[in-house]
Amino acid sequence: MKHHLSVGANPQNNAHSLSTLRGTSIFSSLSVAEDNDWLARCHMRNLCAGETLVDYEDTSKDVFIVQSGEIRAVLRFAVGKEAILGTFRRGDLLGELSAIDEMARSASLMAVSDAIVTVIPYAVFHDILKSRRGVCLSLMQLLSRRIRSMNERVSELSFLDTKHRLYNALLRLSRLRADGEGERIISPPLVHAELAEHIGSSRETVSREMSRLIREQLIERTSRAIVLKDPVELSRRISRALEG
Amino acid sequence: MKHHLSVGANPQNNAHSLSTLRGTSIFSSLSVAEDNDWLARCHMRNLCAGETLVDYEDTSKDVFIVQSGEIRAVLRFAVGKEAILGTFRRGDLLGELSAIDEMARSASLMAVSDAIVTVIPYAVFHDILKSRRGVCLSLMQLLSRRIRSMNERVSELSFLDTKHRLYNALLRLSRLRADGEGERIISPPLVHAELAEHIGSSRETVSREMSRLIREQLIERTSRAIVLKDPVELSRRISRALEG
Repeated sequence: MKHHLSVGANPQNNAHSLSTLRGTSIFSSLSVAEDNDWLARCHMRNLCAGETLVDYEDTSKDVFIVQSGEIRAVLRFAVGKEAILGTFRRGDLLGELSAIDEMARSASLMAVSDAIVTVIPYAVFHDILKSRRGVCLSLMQLLSRRIRSMNERVSELSFLDTKHRLYNALLRLSRLRADGEGERIISPPLVHAELAEHIGSSRETVSREMSRLIREQLIERTSRAIVLKDPVELSRRISRALEG
Repeated sequence: MKHHLSVGANPQNNAHSLSTLRGTSIFSSLSVAEDNDWLARCHMRNLCAGETLVDYEDTSKDVFIVQSGEIRAVLRFAVGKEAILGTFRRGDLLGELSAIDEMARSASLMAVSDAIVTVIPYAVFHDILKSRRGVCLSLMQLLSRRIRSMNERVSELSFLDTKHRLYNALLRLSRLRADGEGERIISPPLVHAELAEHIGSSRETVSREMSRLIREQLIERTSRAIVLKDPVELSRRISRALEG
Protein backbone atom coordinates (compact mmCIF):
# COMPACT_ATOMS: atom_id res chain seq x y z
CA MET A 1 0.00 0.00 0.00
CA LYS A 2 1.57 3.22 -1.13
CA HIS A 3 0.57 6.54 0.23
CA HIS A 4 0.41 9.18 -2.49
CA LEU A 5 0.53 12.80 -1.46
CA SER A 6 -1.30 15.15 -3.80
CA VAL A 7 1.06 17.00 -6.07
CA GLY A 8 0.76 20.72 -5.41
CA ALA A 9 -0.98 20.27 -2.07
CA ASN A 10 -1.30 23.60 -0.37
CA PRO A 11 -2.17 23.22 3.32
CA GLN A 12 -3.49 26.28 5.09
CA ASN A 13 -3.91 26.20 8.81
CA ASN A 14 -6.71 28.74 8.92
CA ALA A 15 -8.70 26.70 6.41
CA HIS A 16 -8.12 23.60 8.54
CA SER A 17 -10.41 24.82 11.29
CA LEU A 18 -13.40 24.77 8.90
CA SER A 19 -13.22 21.13 8.35
CA THR A 20 -14.72 17.95 9.72
CA LEU A 21 -15.04 14.50 8.27
CA ARG A 22 -18.36 13.96 10.05
CA GLY A 23 -20.08 16.53 7.84
CA THR A 24 -19.87 13.92 5.08
CA SER A 25 -22.53 11.24 5.07
CA ILE A 26 -20.26 8.21 5.00
CA PHE A 27 -18.34 9.50 8.05
CA SER A 28 -21.36 10.62 10.06
CA SER A 29 -20.94 7.70 12.48
CA LEU A 30 -17.50 8.91 13.67
CA SER A 31 -17.27 10.41 17.16
CA VAL A 32 -15.83 13.94 17.58
CA ALA A 33 -12.61 12.46 18.99
CA GLU A 34 -12.23 10.02 16.08
CA ASP A 35 -12.98 12.81 13.64
CA ASN A 36 -10.18 14.94 15.11
CA ASP A 37 -7.72 12.04 15.14
CA TRP A 38 -8.27 11.15 11.50
CA LEU A 39 -8.39 14.77 10.43
CA ALA A 40 -4.94 15.37 11.91
CA ARG A 41 -3.63 12.98 9.24
CA CYS A 42 -5.41 14.84 6.41
CA HIS A 43 -4.62 18.21 4.89
CA MET A 44 -6.46 20.98 3.10
CA ARG A 45 -5.98 22.10 -0.45
CA ASN A 46 -7.10 25.41 -1.93
CA LEU A 47 -8.10 25.52 -5.59
CA CYS A 48 -8.74 28.48 -7.87
CA ALA A 49 -11.70 28.46 -10.24
CA GLY A 50 -10.70 26.39 -13.27
CA GLU A 51 -7.90 24.53 -11.49
CA THR A 52 -7.64 20.76 -11.89
CA LEU A 53 -7.68 18.61 -8.75
CA VAL A 54 -6.99 15.33 -10.55
CA ASP A 55 -6.59 14.52 -14.22
CA TYR A 56 -8.21 11.58 -16.02
CA GLU A 57 -5.79 8.62 -15.80
CA ASP A 58 -3.74 10.11 -12.95
CA THR A 59 -2.46 7.41 -10.62
CA SER A 60 -2.99 9.36 -7.38
CA LYS A 61 -5.31 7.60 -4.94
CA ASP A 62 -6.32 10.26 -2.42
CA VAL A 63 -9.96 10.83 -1.54
CA PHE A 64 -11.46 14.33 -1.22
CA ILE A 65 -14.20 16.10 0.69
CA VAL A 66 -15.43 19.44 -0.63
CA GLN A 67 -15.37 22.05 2.14
CA SER A 68 -16.37 25.06 0.04
CA GLY A 69 -16.92 25.89 -3.61
CA GLU A 70 -17.83 23.47 -6.39
CA ILE A 71 -15.86 20.65 -7.97
CA ARG A 72 -16.97 18.98 -11.15
CA ALA A 73 -16.25 15.45 -12.41
CA VAL A 74 -15.77 15.55 -16.16
CA LEU A 75 -14.98 13.06 -18.92
CA ARG A 76 -13.01 14.88 -21.57
CA PHE A 77 -11.83 13.63 -24.94
CA ALA A 78 -11.07 16.70 -26.95
CA VAL A 79 -11.90 20.39 -26.99
CA GLY A 80 -15.66 20.64 -26.79
CA LYS A 81 -16.09 16.91 -26.10
CA GLU A 82 -16.79 16.80 -22.41
CA ALA A 83 -19.44 15.02 -20.38
CA ILE A 84 -20.19 16.37 -16.92
CA LEU A 85 -20.66 13.39 -14.61
CA GLY A 86 -21.56 15.37 -11.54
CA THR A 87 -21.03 18.51 -9.49
CA PHE A 88 -19.88 18.20 -5.89
CA ARG A 89 -20.44 20.70 -3.08
CA ARG A 90 -19.75 21.12 0.65
CA GLY A 91 -19.77 17.75 2.40
CA ASP A 92 -19.60 15.66 -0.78
CA LEU A 93 -17.04 12.85 -1.06
CA LEU A 94 -15.21 12.39 -4.34
CA GLY A 95 -12.28 10.53 -5.83
CA GLU A 96 -13.09 7.34 -3.90
CA LEU A 97 -12.95 4.89 -6.84
CA SER A 98 -9.16 4.93 -7.22
CA ALA A 99 -8.76 4.54 -3.47
CA ILE A 100 -10.96 1.44 -3.60
CA ASP A 101 -9.72 -0.36 -6.71
CA GLU A 102 -6.27 1.25 -7.04
CA MET A 103 -6.83 1.93 -10.72
CA ALA A 104 -6.19 5.21 -12.54
CA ARG A 105 -8.66 8.07 -12.21
CA SER A 106 -11.87 7.51 -14.17
CA ALA A 107 -12.59 11.21 -14.70
CA SER A 108 -11.04 14.63 -14.25
CA LEU A 109 -11.97 16.65 -11.19
CA MET A 110 -11.87 20.40 -11.61
CA ALA A 111 -12.85 23.41 -9.54
CA VAL A 112 -15.80 25.33 -11.02
CA SER A 113 -15.32 28.13 -8.46
CA ASP A 114 -12.61 28.84 -5.90
CA ALA A 115 -12.79 25.83 -3.64
CA ILE A 116 -11.28 24.16 -0.59
CA VAL A 117 -11.06 20.40 -0.26
CA THR A 118 -9.93 18.11 2.53
CA VAL A 119 -7.41 15.63 1.14
CA ILE A 120 -7.75 12.22 2.81
CA PRO A 121 -4.62 10.26 1.94
CA TYR A 122 -5.17 6.73 0.64
CA ALA A 123 -3.63 5.14 3.77
CA VAL A 124 -5.83 7.18 6.11
CA PHE A 125 -8.95 6.33 4.12
CA HIS A 126 -8.18 2.62 4.41
CA ASP A 127 -7.37 2.89 8.12
CA ILE A 128 -10.81 4.40 8.67
CA LEU A 129 -12.46 1.64 6.61
CA LYS A 130 -10.56 -1.00 8.59
CA SER A 131 -11.55 0.34 11.97
CA ARG A 132 -15.16 1.33 11.24
CA ARG A 133 -17.53 -1.19 9.68
CA GLY A 134 -20.30 1.44 9.58
CA VAL A 135 -18.21 3.58 7.26
CA CYS A 136 -17.74 0.57 4.93
CA LEU A 137 -21.47 0.04 4.67
CA SER A 138 -22.14 3.76 4.08
CA LEU A 139 -19.49 3.79 1.39
CA MET A 140 -21.15 0.83 -0.35
CA GLN A 141 -24.44 2.70 -0.20
CA LEU A 142 -22.80 5.75 -1.76
CA LEU A 143 -21.39 3.59 -4.57
CA SER A 144 -24.81 2.02 -5.09
CA ARG A 145 -26.34 5.47 -5.37
CA ARG A 146 -23.75 6.43 -7.98
CA ILE A 147 -24.54 3.26 -10.00
CA ARG A 148 -28.27 3.98 -9.86
CA SER A 149 -27.80 7.51 -11.09
CA MET A 150 -25.52 6.26 -13.88
CA ASN A 151 -28.28 3.80 -14.85
CA GLU A 152 -30.67 6.71 -15.19
CA ARG A 153 -28.13 8.60 -17.22
CA VAL A 154 -27.73 5.63 -19.58
CA SER A 155 -31.48 5.36 -20.09
CA GLU A 156 -31.73 9.09 -20.65
CA LEU A 157 -28.99 8.93 -23.28
CA SER A 158 -30.31 5.72 -24.86
CA PHE A 159 -33.95 6.58 -25.21
CA LEU A 160 -34.56 10.29 -25.14
CA ASP A 161 -34.05 12.76 -27.96
CA THR A 162 -32.17 15.99 -27.26
CA LYS A 163 -35.25 17.94 -26.22
CA HIS A 164 -36.28 15.43 -23.59
CA ARG A 165 -32.72 14.94 -22.39
CA LEU A 166 -32.66 18.67 -21.74
CA TYR A 167 -35.90 18.51 -19.71
CA ASN A 168 -34.42 15.63 -17.74
CA ALA A 169 -31.16 17.48 -17.08
CA LEU A 170 -33.03 20.59 -15.94
CA LEU A 171 -34.96 18.49 -13.43
CA ARG A 172 -31.89 16.57 -12.34
CA LEU A 173 -29.74 19.67 -11.81
CA SER A 174 -32.37 21.80 -10.07
CA ARG A 175 -33.50 21.92 -6.48
CA LEU A 176 -36.89 22.75 -5.01
CA ARG A 177 -37.27 26.53 -4.55
CA ALA A 178 -37.80 27.39 -0.90
CA ASP A 179 -40.76 29.77 -1.40
CA GLY A 180 -41.78 28.68 -4.85
CA GLU A 181 -44.91 26.50 -4.66
CA GLY A 182 -43.37 23.56 -6.49
CA GLU A 183 -41.05 25.64 -8.67
CA ARG A 184 -37.49 24.38 -9.03
CA ILE A 185 -34.35 26.43 -9.47
CA ILE A 186 -30.83 26.05 -10.88
CA SER A 187 -28.67 28.67 -9.18
CA PRO A 188 -26.08 29.78 -10.12
CA PRO A 189 -27.51 29.24 -13.63
CA LEU A 190 -25.65 27.03 -16.10
CA VAL A 191 -24.80 28.52 -19.48
CA HIS A 192 -26.08 26.73 -22.56
CA ALA A 193 -22.67 25.23 -23.36
CA GLU A 194 -22.62 23.57 -19.92
CA LEU A 195 -26.13 22.22 -20.33
CA ALA A 196 -25.02 20.83 -23.70
CA GLU A 197 -22.20 18.95 -21.94
CA HIS A 198 -24.69 17.43 -19.54
CA ILE A 199 -26.78 15.95 -22.32
CA GLY A 200 -24.24 15.20 -25.05
CA SER A 201 -25.56 17.83 -27.42
CA SER A 202 -24.50 21.14 -28.95
CA ARG A 203 -24.83 24.66 -27.53
CA GLU A 204 -26.93 25.72 -30.51
CA THR A 205 -29.48 22.96 -29.96
CA VAL A 206 -29.73 23.76 -26.26
CA SER A 207 -30.20 27.47 -26.97
CA ARG A 208 -33.03 26.74 -29.40
CA GLU A 209 -34.82 24.43 -26.94
CA MET A 210 -34.31 26.83 -24.01
CA SER A 211 -35.88 29.66 -26.05
CA ARG A 212 -38.84 27.44 -26.81
CA LEU A 213 -39.28 26.59 -23.11
CA ILE A 214 -39.17 30.30 -22.22
CA ARG A 215 -41.84 31.06 -24.86
CA GLU A 216 -43.97 28.26 -23.41
CA GLN A 217 -43.46 29.87 -19.96
CA LEU A 218 -42.15 26.57 -18.60
CA ILE A 219 -38.88 28.19 -17.58
CA GLU A 220 -37.66 31.67 -16.76
CA ARG A 221 -34.07 32.85 -16.95
CA THR A 222 -32.72 35.53 -14.64
CA SER A 223 -29.12 36.65 -14.16
CA ARG A 224 -28.92 34.53 -11.03
CA ALA A 225 -30.93 31.45 -11.83
CA ILE A 226 -32.86 29.24 -14.21
CA VAL A 227 -36.34 28.84 -12.74
CA LEU A 228 -38.48 25.83 -13.69
CA LYS A 229 -42.02 27.22 -13.47
CA ASP A 230 -43.79 23.91 -14.09
CA PRO A 231 -41.54 20.94 -13.31
CA VAL A 232 -44.52 18.57 -13.30
CA GLU A 233 -45.20 19.32 -16.97
CA LEU A 234 -41.55 18.61 -17.81
CA SER A 235 -41.76 15.24 -16.01
CA ARG A 236 -44.98 14.43 -17.80
CA ARG A 237 -43.37 15.08 -21.20
CA ILE A 238 -40.42 12.84 -20.33
CA SER A 239 -42.71 10.00 -19.24
CA ARG A 240 -44.67 10.30 -22.48
CA ALA A 241 -41.43 10.18 -24.50
CA LEU A 242 -40.20 7.11 -22.60
CA GLU A 243 -43.47 5.24 -22.88
CA GLY A 244 -44.36 6.32 -26.38
CA MET B 1 -33.97 -6.49 8.53
CA LYS B 2 -36.49 -8.49 6.57
CA HIS B 3 -35.60 -11.62 4.74
CA HIS B 4 -37.41 -11.79 1.41
CA LEU B 5 -37.71 -15.15 -0.23
CA SER B 6 -37.80 -14.99 -4.00
CA VAL B 7 -41.29 -15.42 -5.34
CA GLY B 8 -41.42 -18.58 -7.38
CA ALA B 9 -38.19 -19.96 -5.96
CA ASN B 10 -37.71 -23.49 -7.15
CA PRO B 11 -34.99 -25.25 -5.14
CA GLN B 12 -33.58 -28.43 -6.65
CA ASN B 13 -31.32 -30.58 -4.59
CA ASN B 14 -29.42 -32.03 -7.53
CA ALA B 15 -28.61 -28.53 -8.78
CA HIS B 16 -27.37 -27.62 -5.29
CA SER B 17 -24.29 -29.78 -5.60
CA LEU B 18 -23.03 -27.66 -8.50
CA SER B 19 -22.76 -24.59 -6.46
CA THR B 20 -20.14 -22.75 -4.44
CA LEU B 21 -19.94 -19.16 -3.30
CA ARG B 22 -16.15 -19.19 -3.63
CA GLY B 23 -16.35 -19.43 -7.42
CA THR B 24 -17.45 -15.78 -7.32
CA SER B 25 -14.67 -13.21 -7.03
CA ILE B 26 -16.01 -11.34 -4.00
CA PHE B 27 -16.30 -14.60 -2.03
CA SER B 28 -12.96 -16.08 -3.10
CA SER B 29 -11.47 -15.46 0.36
CA LEU B 30 -13.97 -17.82 2.09
CA SER B 31 -12.68 -21.17 3.33
CA VAL B 32 -14.36 -24.37 2.12
CA ALA B 33 -16.01 -24.78 5.53
CA GLU B 34 -17.34 -21.21 5.54
CA ASP B 35 -18.55 -21.64 1.97
CA ASN B 36 -20.54 -24.75 2.96
CA ASP B 37 -21.99 -23.08 6.04
CA TRP B 38 -23.24 -20.01 4.18
CA LEU B 39 -24.42 -22.07 1.22
CA ALA B 40 -26.64 -24.14 3.50
CA ARG B 41 -28.62 -20.93 4.09
CA CYS B 42 -28.98 -20.22 0.35
CA HIS B 43 -31.10 -21.99 -2.23
CA MET B 44 -31.06 -22.60 -5.96
CA ARG B 45 -33.53 -21.34 -8.51
CA ASN B 46 -34.02 -22.71 -12.01
CA LEU B 47 -35.13 -20.32 -14.74
CA CYS B 48 -36.37 -21.01 -18.25
CA ALA B 49 -35.12 -18.92 -21.16
CA GLY B 50 -37.09 -15.66 -21.13
CA GLU B 51 -38.12 -15.94 -17.48
CA THR B 52 -37.79 -12.90 -15.25
CA LEU B 53 -35.68 -13.20 -12.08
CA VAL B 54 -36.52 -9.73 -10.76
CA ASP B 55 -38.60 -6.93 -12.19
CA TYR B 56 -37.59 -3.26 -12.26
CA GLU B 57 -38.89 -1.64 -9.04
CA ASP B 58 -39.43 -4.96 -7.24
CA THR B 59 -38.73 -4.62 -3.53
CA SER B 60 -37.01 -8.00 -3.11
CA LYS B 61 -33.46 -7.73 -1.77
CA ASP B 62 -31.85 -11.10 -2.47
CA VAL B 63 -28.49 -11.35 -4.18
CA PHE B 64 -27.79 -13.88 -6.95
CA ILE B 65 -24.88 -15.84 -8.34
CA VAL B 66 -25.21 -17.30 -11.83
CA GLN B 67 -24.36 -21.02 -11.78
CA SER B 68 -25.22 -21.79 -15.39
CA GLY B 69 -26.81 -20.03 -18.36
CA GLU B 70 -27.01 -16.29 -18.96
CA ILE B 71 -28.88 -13.58 -17.11
CA ARG B 72 -29.28 -10.11 -18.55
CA ALA B 73 -29.82 -6.82 -16.71
CA VAL B 74 -32.17 -4.64 -18.73
CA LEU B 75 -33.76 -1.21 -18.40
CA ARG B 76 -37.14 -1.35 -20.06
CA PHE B 77 -39.61 1.44 -20.63
CA ALA B 78 -41.92 0.23 -23.32
CA VAL B 79 -42.01 -2.34 -26.07
CA GLY B 80 -38.83 -1.89 -28.07
CA LYS B 81 -37.35 0.55 -25.57
CA GLU B 82 -34.82 -1.50 -23.70
CA ALA B 83 -31.21 -0.90 -22.78
CA ILE B 84 -29.08 -3.91 -21.98
CA LEU B 85 -26.88 -3.00 -19.00
CA GLY B 86 -24.94 -6.21 -18.90
CA THR B 87 -24.95 -9.97 -19.36
CA PHE B 88 -23.98 -12.20 -16.46
CA ARG B 89 -22.56 -15.72 -16.64
CA ARG B 90 -21.30 -18.50 -14.35
CA GLY B 91 -19.69 -17.05 -11.25
CA ASP B 92 -21.06 -13.51 -11.73
CA LEU B 93 -22.76 -11.74 -8.83
CA LEU B 94 -25.88 -9.71 -9.52
CA GLY B 95 -28.71 -7.97 -7.72
CA GLU B 96 -26.39 -6.59 -5.03
CA LEU B 97 -27.54 -2.95 -5.16
CA SER B 98 -30.88 -3.50 -3.46
CA ALA B 99 -29.21 -5.62 -0.79
CA ILE B 100 -26.83 -2.75 -0.08
CA ASP B 101 -29.09 0.30 -0.16
CA GLU B 102 -32.46 -1.39 0.43
CA MET B 103 -34.03 0.47 -2.44
CA ALA B 104 -36.17 -1.01 -5.22
CA ARG B 105 -34.52 -2.88 -8.07
CA SER B 106 -32.77 -0.57 -10.55
CA ALA B 107 -33.18 -2.91 -13.52
CA SER B 108 -34.93 -6.10 -14.59
CA LEU B 109 -32.97 -9.34 -14.53
CA MET B 110 -34.05 -11.94 -17.04
CA ALA B 111 -32.76 -15.30 -18.21
CA VAL B 112 -31.47 -15.25 -21.79
CA SER B 113 -31.11 -19.04 -21.79
CA ASP B 114 -32.19 -21.71 -19.32
CA ALA B 115 -30.26 -20.81 -16.20
CA ILE B 116 -29.59 -21.76 -12.60
CA VAL B 117 -28.83 -19.15 -9.94
CA THR B 118 -27.89 -19.38 -6.29
CA VAL B 119 -30.20 -17.14 -4.28
CA ILE B 120 -28.37 -15.54 -1.33
CA PRO B 121 -31.03 -14.14 0.99
CA TYR B 122 -30.52 -10.55 2.13
CA ALA B 123 -29.88 -11.61 5.75
CA VAL B 124 -27.24 -14.15 4.73
CA PHE B 125 -25.50 -11.64 2.47
CA HIS B 126 -25.24 -9.18 5.35
CA ASP B 127 -24.06 -11.85 7.77
CA ILE B 128 -21.20 -12.63 5.39
CA LEU B 129 -20.34 -8.92 5.04
CA LYS B 130 -20.38 -8.55 8.81
CA SER B 131 -18.07 -11.47 9.46
CA ARG B 132 -15.64 -11.03 6.56
CA ARG B 133 -13.95 -7.68 5.97
CA GLY B 134 -12.22 -9.05 2.86
CA VAL B 135 -15.62 -9.64 1.24
CA CYS B 136 -16.59 -6.02 1.97
CA LEU B 137 -13.52 -4.70 0.21
CA SER B 138 -14.00 -7.02 -2.77
CA LEU B 139 -17.61 -5.90 -3.02
CA MET B 140 -16.53 -2.25 -3.06
CA GLN B 141 -14.10 -3.09 -5.84
CA LEU B 142 -16.88 -4.76 -7.79
CA LEU B 143 -19.06 -1.68 -7.38
CA SER B 144 -16.18 0.53 -8.49
CA ARG B 145 -15.75 -1.60 -11.59
CA ARG B 146 -19.44 -1.22 -12.37
CA ILE B 147 -19.19 2.58 -12.01
CA ARG B 148 -16.18 2.71 -14.29
CA SER B 149 -17.90 0.69 -16.97
CA MET B 150 -20.99 2.92 -16.68
CA ASN B 151 -18.71 5.94 -17.15
CA GLU B 152 -17.49 4.43 -20.39
CA ARG B 153 -21.04 3.75 -21.44
CA VAL B 154 -22.00 7.37 -20.75
CA SER B 155 -19.10 8.68 -22.84
CA GLU B 156 -19.95 6.25 -25.60
CA LEU B 157 -23.55 7.44 -25.63
CA SER B 158 -22.64 11.11 -25.24
CA PHE B 159 -19.98 11.45 -27.89
CA LEU B 160 -20.23 8.73 -30.47
CA ASP B 161 -22.64 8.53 -33.37
CA THR B 162 -24.49 5.26 -34.00
CA LYS B 163 -21.82 3.80 -36.22
CA HIS B 164 -19.05 4.25 -33.66
CA ARG B 165 -21.27 3.14 -30.79
CA LEU B 166 -21.76 -0.09 -32.71
CA TYR B 167 -17.97 -0.55 -33.15
CA ASN B 168 -17.57 0.08 -29.44
CA ALA B 169 -20.31 -2.39 -28.49
CA LEU B 170 -18.80 -5.06 -30.75
CA LEU B 171 -15.45 -4.65 -28.99
CA ARG B 172 -17.03 -4.51 -25.53
CA LEU B 173 -19.15 -7.63 -26.03
CA SER B 174 -16.51 -9.77 -27.73
CA ARG B 175 -13.72 -11.88 -26.33
CA LEU B 176 -10.33 -12.72 -27.77
CA ARG B 177 -10.57 -15.77 -30.07
CA ALA B 178 -8.41 -18.60 -28.75
CA ASP B 179 -6.70 -19.46 -32.04
CA GLY B 180 -7.43 -16.27 -33.90
CA GLU B 181 -4.29 -14.09 -34.12
CA GLY B 182 -5.91 -11.07 -32.54
CA GLU B 183 -9.39 -11.75 -33.86
CA ARG B 184 -12.27 -11.32 -31.43
CA ILE B 185 -15.51 -13.24 -31.30
CA ILE B 186 -19.09 -12.81 -30.06
CA SER B 187 -20.53 -16.28 -29.55
CA PRO B 188 -23.38 -17.07 -29.43
CA PRO B 189 -23.93 -14.20 -31.88
CA LEU B 190 -26.30 -11.36 -30.98
CA VAL B 191 -29.09 -10.56 -33.40
CA HIS B 192 -29.28 -7.02 -34.76
CA ALA B 193 -32.20 -6.11 -32.51
CA GLU B 194 -30.10 -7.00 -29.45
CA LEU B 195 -27.13 -4.99 -30.68
CA ALA B 196 -29.53 -2.07 -31.20
CA GLU B 197 -30.55 -2.34 -27.55
CA HIS B 198 -26.92 -2.17 -26.50
CA ILE B 199 -26.35 1.11 -28.28
CA GLY B 200 -29.72 2.86 -28.07
CA SER B 201 -30.42 2.62 -31.78
CA SER B 202 -32.78 0.84 -34.19
CA ARG B 203 -32.46 -2.62 -35.69
CA GLU B 204 -32.53 -1.13 -39.19
CA THR B 205 -29.56 1.12 -38.50
CA VAL B 206 -27.58 -1.73 -36.98
CA SER B 207 -28.34 -3.99 -39.96
CA ARG B 208 -27.12 -1.33 -42.39
CA GLU B 209 -23.88 -0.76 -40.46
CA MET B 210 -23.25 -4.49 -39.98
CA SER B 211 -23.62 -5.04 -43.75
CA ARG B 212 -21.12 -2.28 -44.35
CA LEU B 213 -18.64 -3.85 -41.91
CA ILE B 214 -19.02 -7.22 -43.65
CA ARG B 215 -18.38 -5.59 -47.06
CA GLU B 216 -15.27 -3.94 -45.59
CA GLN B 217 -14.22 -7.40 -44.32
CA LEU B 218 -13.90 -6.04 -40.78
CA ILE B 219 -16.40 -8.59 -39.48
CA GLU B 220 -17.69 -11.97 -40.55
CA ARG B 221 -20.99 -13.50 -39.52
CA THR B 222 -21.46 -17.23 -39.14
CA SER B 223 -24.40 -19.12 -37.67
CA ARG B 224 -22.50 -19.52 -34.42
CA ALA B 225 -20.61 -16.26 -34.01
CA ILE B 226 -19.81 -12.72 -35.04
CA VAL B 227 -16.07 -12.60 -35.75
CA LEU B 228 -14.20 -9.30 -35.56
CA LYS B 229 -11.45 -9.75 -38.16
CA ASP B 230 -9.63 -6.50 -37.37
CA PRO B 231 -10.47 -5.20 -33.89
CA VAL B 232 -7.50 -2.81 -33.97
CA GLU B 233 -9.01 -0.95 -36.93
CA LEU B 234 -12.34 -0.63 -35.06
CA SER B 235 -10.51 0.82 -32.02
CA ARG B 236 -8.63 3.22 -34.25
CA ARG B 237 -11.87 4.51 -35.78
CA ILE B 238 -13.40 5.04 -32.33
CA SER B 239 -10.34 6.97 -31.14
CA ARG B 240 -10.48 9.18 -34.22
CA ALA B 241 -14.18 9.85 -33.61
CA LEU B 242 -13.57 10.74 -29.95
CA GLU B 243 -10.66 13.00 -30.67
CA GLY B 244 -11.98 14.54 -33.86
